[in-house]
Amino acid sequence: MNALDIRTRNLGVNFNRDGHANVLLWAPKADLVEIFLLKDDSRIPLQKKKYGYWSLETNAIEPGDEYLFILNEKDRFPDPASLAQPSGVHGASEAIDIKSYKWTDIEWKNIPLKDYITYEVHVGTFTDEGTFAAMIEKLDYLADLGITAVEIMPVAQFSGERNWGYDGVFPFSVQNSYGGAHGLQQLVDACHNKGLAVILDVVYNHIGPEGNHLENFAPYFTDKYNTPWGNAINFDDAWCDGVREYFSDNAMMWFRDFHIDALRMDAIHAIKDFGPVHILQEIKQDTDMLAQQTGRSHHLIVELDLNDTRFINPSDKGGFGMDAQWIDEFHHALRVSSGQPKTGYYSDFDAITSLAKSYEDAYVYDGAYSDHRKKKFGMKASENTGQQFVVFSQNHDHVGNRMLGERTSQLISAEMQKLLAGAVMASPYLPMLFMGEEYGETNPFQYFVSHTDPELAEAVRKGRKKEFEAFHVEGEAPDPMAEETFTNSKLQWDLINKEPHETMLGYYKKLISIRKEQPALSVLNRKDLSVESDEKQQTIILHRQYKMQEVICFMNFSNEPREVTASIYAP
Amino acid sequence: MNALDIRTRNLGVNFNRDGHANVLLWAPKADLVEIFLLKDDSRIPLQKKKYGYWSLETNAIEPGDEYLFILNEKDRFPDPASLAQPSGVHGASEAIDIKSYKWTDIEWKNIPLKDYITYEVHVGTFTDEGTFAAMIEKLDYLADLGITAVEIMPVAQFSGERNWGYDGVFPFSVQNSYGGAHGLQQLVDACHNKGLAVILDVVYNHIGPEGNHLENFAPYFTDKYNTPWGNAINFDDAWCDGVREYFSDNAMMWFRDFHIDALRMDAIHAIKDFGPVHILQEIKQDTDMLAQQTGRSHHLIVELDLNDTRFINPSDKGGFGMDAQWIDEFHHALRVSSGQPKTGYYSDFDAITSLAKSYEDAYVYDGAYSDHRKKKFGMKASENTGQQFVVFSQNHDHVGNRMLGERTSQLISAEMQKLLAGAVMASPYLPMLFMGEEYGETNPFQYFVSHTDPELAEAVRKGRKKEFEAFHVEGEAPDPMAEETFTNSKLQWDLINKEPHETMLGYYKKLISIRKEQPALSVLNRKDLSVESDEKQQTIILHRQYKMQEVICFMNFSNEPREVTASIYAP
Repeated sequence: MNALDIRTRNLGVNFNRDGHANVLLWAPKADLVEIFLLKDDSRIPLQKKKYGYWSLETNAIEPGDEYLFILNEKDRFPDPASLAQPSGVHGASEAIDIKSYKWTDIEWKNIPLKDYITYEVHVGTFTDEGTFAAMIEKLDYLADLGITAVEIMPVAQFSGERNWGYDGVFPFSVQNSYGGAHGLQQLVDACHNKGLAVILDVVYNHIGPEGNHLENFAPYFTDKYNTPWGNAINFDDAWCDGVREYFSDNAMMWFRDFHIDALRMDAIHAIKDFGPVHILQEIKQDTDMLAQQTGRSHHLIVELDLNDTRFINPSDKGGFGMDAQWIDEFHHALRVSSGQPKTGYYSDFDAITSLAKSYEDAYVYDGAYSDHRKKKFGMKASENTGQQFVVFSQNHDHVGNRMLGERTSQLISAEMQKLLAGAVMASPYLPMLFMGEEYGETNPFQYFVSHTDPELAEAVRKGRKKEFEAFHVEGEAPDPMAEETFTNSKLQWDLINKEPHETMLGYYKKLISIRKEQPALSVLNRKDLSVESDEKQQTIILHRQYKMQEVICFMNFSNEPREVTASIYAP
Repeated sequence: MNALDIRTRNLGVNFNRDGHANVLLWAPKADLVEIFLLKDDSRIPLQKKKYGYWSLETNAIEPGDEYLFILNEKDRFPDPASLAQPSGVHGASEAIDIKSYKWTDIEWKNIPLKDYITYEVHVGTFTDEGTFAAMIEKLDYLADLGITAVEIMPVAQFSGERNWGYDGVFPFSVQNSYGGAHGLQQLVDACHNKGLAVILDVVYNHIGPEGNHLENFAPYFTDKYNTPWGNAINFDDAWCDGVREYFSDNAMMWFRDFHIDALRMDAIHAIKDFGPVHILQEIKQDTDMLAQQTGRSHHLIVELDLNDTRFINPSDKGGFGMDAQWIDEFHHALRVSSGQPKTGYYSDFDAITSLAKSYEDAYVYDGAYSDHRKKKFGMKASENTGQQFVVFSQNHDHVGNRMLGERTSQLISAEMQKLLAGAVMASPYLPMLFMGEEYGETNPFQYFVSHTDPELAEAVRKGRKKEFEAFHVEGEAPDPMAEETFTNSKLQWDLINKEPHETMLGYYKKLISIRKEQPALSVLNRKDLSVESDEKQQTIILHRQYKMQEVICFMNFSNEPREVTASIYAP
């Protein structure tokens, strides 16, 4: 197996220094592979290499050319490593010279992970235009807000023009309707010039339901494991090396060619890999090697629902070496504390008690029996640092998973919203906001798709409807296929100058600046922290300390005034 | 979740000091559970406890009583933790007082793992009678041979009277036709009195195809993972705690109540467990705790086809803490060296080169691409000690997986058999023989079953036939269901006094005694070892060293005389 050359993109069509195209395709079971150029209907055969790879160097392909691969002289498919799908997921791929972008961020240096204050953005609904270009216009606003990192929900090409991003089917291709690869490069460049780091959300646990042509090329999937999306991506079965290289090549591309500072890897508990080197470990090794070569550092953040420190422990402790993980449990405890009924995944959580535990131990379930999961769940995370955990009072999932997609602004009082924001900012973990949260956006963030396959569209519609039948929720689930479900989810930027939004925005700014300025808050020392909680009074007193400085946060989740007393610990 | 009480068997019917029966059943989805006693057609209800357990203490049940469980007043099933199935897998369970056996092995102390020289036995074919009792008659012979540990192929109750043992469906019940629980206790007791340790082969990766009633009681299986036997045993999905406790309780029972010295856990690569504490780690923790209480030590040996040291590394390195694993790769390399054609799983192995690599590195594949597996395979095992690897020139699998079940005695010359024996005994690993190997048994060890379900029987017959169609092997696969396939596989004890068998037996005895007496061989130091190999000449010179002593083993796998020279390293 060729080790990946991390200095350059390996797969797909890439242009070398001479301007020639290097073509590399993994198609281990094909007998003949050709590249078909739409501009002149020409076909050029690829040469068979070891381990199922096919390659070609040619000057017949130029940036902007559209192409398909022909397998065994009959079937034509777009490139699994396509950088652009100008006509969508069913159309031809477009060759792009990804290295041609002229970067202006030469001075940029990634922010240490401990200083990340993240702002999660869905490109399509962040602005009216729903593009990277329009997003650039808002960067001054974000810098002024005080956040330090922008997290972009997945941008891999999906079917249609409206999607959260988790239905992507071309992991290397940036959604054409957002502005494509160069559009993303411009956005990242602009972020860096405003002092903002960029986290990209990537999906390595499944491929979307429409426009997935991968299986025609190679065994990208295995029936050894079942996932919510069907067969698992093949990370450890026969032929897995090509699949592993595909995703490693992808991760390195974002860092190297798009200057992405950190990846947020989606639901990695659904990545099934029993091999001796977990794919995440391999990505970590490649990331470290790339950093050595470029001098730029990158963070690996994962969404993880296992409360298993193996994923975030260093490799010498048998871990996979991820830098940080999301902890939804903090969110659940916080939301129940704020009055969220204990239904569905909230049912496992007490209010104040669970929140206090999450402040102290990160994982609420660290070995106890979970009635929702029907098993003992989790393990202690006592050896892990505060910067290994990302917390939030809402995110795209917990807003969008509600039938009507309500943000907290529609569910709880302004004072309670402020309390949640404070609870997040005062935590010894990495805080994250969901776009619009900072000014109390009143529009929902609903579940929307725009599949072009009518059967799939209908199945999604029905599935969404069925999902909420069990809840006996009043009203009807918005139609995920309807364009208005998408437009209704857009931010309303005119709100930021109106009340009560302006006040809320000012509050968030202040809160963020306090977090940044007070070492007792910004130094993520889990040891110098103590929590006093009172479930009945619905109060928490959180002590954070750094050397001589102490910050005491009084949190009252009740609707009544409470009298509490706290001792001052710091000398 | 109740932590297991490792001092006693928890599940099923057990008798306490007062002679009362304690009944414990896990049936989380039942509304009503009763125990039905065949002696008087009486039913006694169990009380519902936490986590889906049901329990009862009663003086209405006595040892020898047959019983079934009745779920929801209608369905009757034998006990998942039954200790005895006197009428087979479809009949009632029998209550046994497992603690009533009067042990005479009070002086026994387990042998250190490094001194294990193992002899693998299939009870049914080891003697004409095919019982534990008959096996006891052969212990003097085994002790005289020089082996130190007897490994018993699985004894969990299977359908019919003839089976390798991997179709067991009552993990706690000792096969009635072998002599049942007390028969096994007598055998272990007798082994200990002869100075022999006992390894029991247990199957925790699947349940056999006939007589599996587990799913009626609880979610013992999960469709998250597919295995060669269908749905995987549920070690990490919802409700997994009860399943985990079932198997932990089983492992502890063998150590505590049967005085088993070591477990050999079958094909643990087929145990699918992504939880934070792997079930093997949990069994290791329980084993250590039990050893603390009893003062008796126990070894955990696994069959593993992953070349992944995670399983045998200690827990502080992120490992699962297994003491040792089988390495089939040593066997494959050895057999190819002896002339075995490179077909099927042998295709990945060179002769001398692979064998030399296995002497040096244990794993032949420690990261290289395997053409048979179609992926890079394995990792380095440089930090693992020699006593963590079990090697052999044949075992039940590699004999029985052949269409005609030929042992090496039917395939290679007597001189080559001796070379293989020497190659195993001179290795820095734990040697294992397969019963009869030591005197060149000429009978095969074929694949046999005796399912009573005619459809299943036919399916197995066809499957076996189909398996060998691809090989275009001459002749026909013996009928697995035929009794003669079983009787043809029995050892012929009259051979040991005839030639050439007597000579072979003498050779093995001498070899074993040299292994035991020479520290350069018996001290399993992988560092003081070197190998010179010559693929063309088909020779290996293996140097083993301990302090001032050096043993040099000259191995010639060709059919020609070879001249080799070796330097002496030791001072």
